[in-house]
Amino acid sequence: MQPALYAVIMAGGSGTRFWPASRRSRPKQFLAVAGQQPMLTATRERLGALVPDERVLVVAGEHQADLVREALPGLPPENLLLEPCARNTLPCVALAAAEIQRRDPDSVQAVLPADHVIAPVAAFQSSLQAAAQVALEEQRLVTFGIKPTFPATGYGYIEVGEPLEQRADWKVHEVARFVEKPGEQRAREYQASGRFLWNSGMFVWRSADIAAALAEHAPQTWEALRDASGDGLAAAYDSVASEPIDVGVMERAERRAVIPVDYGWSDVGAWTAVADVVPADDQGNHLVGGGMLEALSAKDNIVWSDGGKLTALIGVEGLVVVRAGDAVLVCPRERAQQIKQLVERLPEDWR
Amino acid sequence: MQPALYAVIMAGGSGTRFWPASRRSRPKQFLAVAGQQPMLTATRERLGALVPDERVLVVAGEHQADLVREALPGLPPENLLLEPCARNTLPCVALAAAEIQRRDPDSVQAVLPADHVIAPVAAFQSSLQAAAQVALEEQRLVTFGIKPTFPATGYGYIEVGEPLEQRADWKVHEVARFVEKPGEQRAREYQASGRFLWNSGMFVWRSADIAAALAEHAPQTWEALRDASGDGLAAAYDSVASEPIDVGVMERAERRAVIPVDYGWSDVGAWTAVADVVPADDQGNHLVGGGMLEALSAKDNIVWSDGGKLTALIGVEGLVVVRAGDAVLVCPRERAQQIKQLVERLPEDWR
Repeated sequence: MQPALYAVIMAGGSGTRFWPASRRSRPKQFLAVAGQQPMLTATRERLGALVPDERVLVVAGEHQADLVREALPGLPPENLLLEPCARNTLPCVALAAAEIQRRDPDSVQAVLPADHVIAPVAAFQSSLQAAAQVALEEQRLVTFGIKPTFPATGYGYIEVGEPLEQRADWKVHEVARFVEKPGEQRAREYQASGRFLWNSGMFVWRSADIAAALAEHAPQTWEALRDASGDGLAAAYDSVASEPIDVGVMERAERRAVIPVDYGWSDVGAWTAVADVVPADDQGNHLVGGGMLEALSAKDNIVWSDGGKLTALIGVEGLVVVRAGDAVLVCPRERAQQIKQLVERLPEDWR
Repeated sequence: MQPALYAVIMAGGSGTRFWPASRRSRPKQFLAVAGQQPMLTATRERLGALVPDERVLVVAGEHQADLVREALPGLPPENLLLEPCARNTLPCVALAAAEIQRRDPDSVQAVLPADHVIAPVAAFQSSLQAAAQVALEEQRLVTFGIKPTFPATGYGYIEVGEPLEQRADWKVHEVARFVEKPGEQRAREYQASGRFLWNSGMFVWRSADIAAALAEHAPQTWEALRDASGDGLAAAYDSVASEPIDVGVMERAERRAVIPVDYGWSDVGAWTAVADVVPADDQGNHLVGGGMLEALSAKDNIVWSDGGKLTALIGVEGLVVVRAGDAVLVCPRERAQQIKQLVERLPEDWR
């Protein structure tokens, strides 16, 4: 019998880059920043029939439980794993790995961020199936590498190693190394070399292999979280280090593989990225959020308008204009990185 | 005994230039566009003790009755005159003149638009008293002329005639003629000549004199409105011509006077005018509407933010940014005249 494929959706993120649409109380994975559905909903939908509801696990913060239930009404209650506090992705992966280990130690898992945009779905599912085969048969920790379309300084990179094999449409390679976000010069070199891929932050592995890797490379966290529950979990989370799974495990592990993929992928890291994932109208304006836009000689703007609300633009170009709840933001696209700075100046209630 | 001074506040205007803060259902005189109070409230306040409540009459549209009561809770109910439909200022003046004629035929009236900003109050009141003296003693229709500060094409002008006399601090002149809004070239000539003043649209006259002038120059309207009430008033308004008092009476009347005034005056004709009447913060941003503004490297913007709401600007300059009710507007200051055009494209509900 083919081992079961589980999905672990990491939905615990927070962030201010989509302020004011995203607030501390509703970060972007719970918003339709990149389409008609909250990103978490779209992430689950993208798995389709490949992973039935009973094998979808969602990890989120305790205060996000209602938001997860709202976005995924079909999620079995026992599949929602709540973190007492945020500790980056390594403890999140460990928490889910421990749970799946208890339920089905022979399974394979796909670990997916809740806030990525990927299309087309068929290509994504095909790559996932290929990765599951590699994980199962080769007992490798498999990751997906995105072919860089520009010299990004905001992503980590994976240097591609020796070719391993071909799985359906997908080439599989050794991982030479994981590298942290580079500077501009190095990012240009990486892109030019053809040997570097963006680290997508998506992983596929056998449950037994990630458990073993955690035990080897992050023994304190694994020990602390493996059997913790209830009050014990809160104490355990308090004690563990905050660390990304990439740094804590992937950089150190031995049996790894990367599948280069060239489908549409974006982590929609800021308002500006909406232009890459949401089609423009005939004036080049990108509208999200469910509201209306009336534009008069206004082009290349990114507009979030809450459902039922109207945004009217006259003669402006290249702006991010967000009307969300009780706040409005107006900012040139090229200055969107300053939103964080602005939010830090605001009183707590507005964040 | 000194004749009583009445005030007629014309509050029936409508308009889209302050959209989306002003809507068809709440035009600018009912909004705090230029300060802390609705403009109608400020207009009444500016009269101070010069005109007690029982002698303040407000003319507005039937659908605006509640807005007037909200802005002026002290207004005696019988002093609210409701027009069944909008017919410009001549019928409005006639309706009020007929009412005052019945109450106190020996009185003097000041007729004032509800949506002007004037400061300082002491100078305004002093000019009003001077005008009342001229109206009373000379039996002239008195108007106020504003010294042009730029070659405006948006105002009518008054050509100043022979000097008549001095009243306290105020010089009084004959009116040579009223002229309609000029083109740019002519506006420059007017300003350079020193003989032309902006027509402020404020008037002072004896009740007997305006009644006589209406009977002479607008006999059909005067006949129709003089004794009309109830259903008769609706029929009368249906029948009368829509005409400004300037054109229908002032241009034609014989005994006229103009008092040049140099106090701060603005009809706040558009969002851009807010910059002239509302002080800027230290980044040059003008905030109205009762909400909050957080500006990061953003300057010279005009911002309306509803009470309790936040507008955040990053790195933008010279914009009008309005968040009012269910709509947001973003528009460079120099294109604010296109708001009208945009509003015309909107579905009825949004106007």
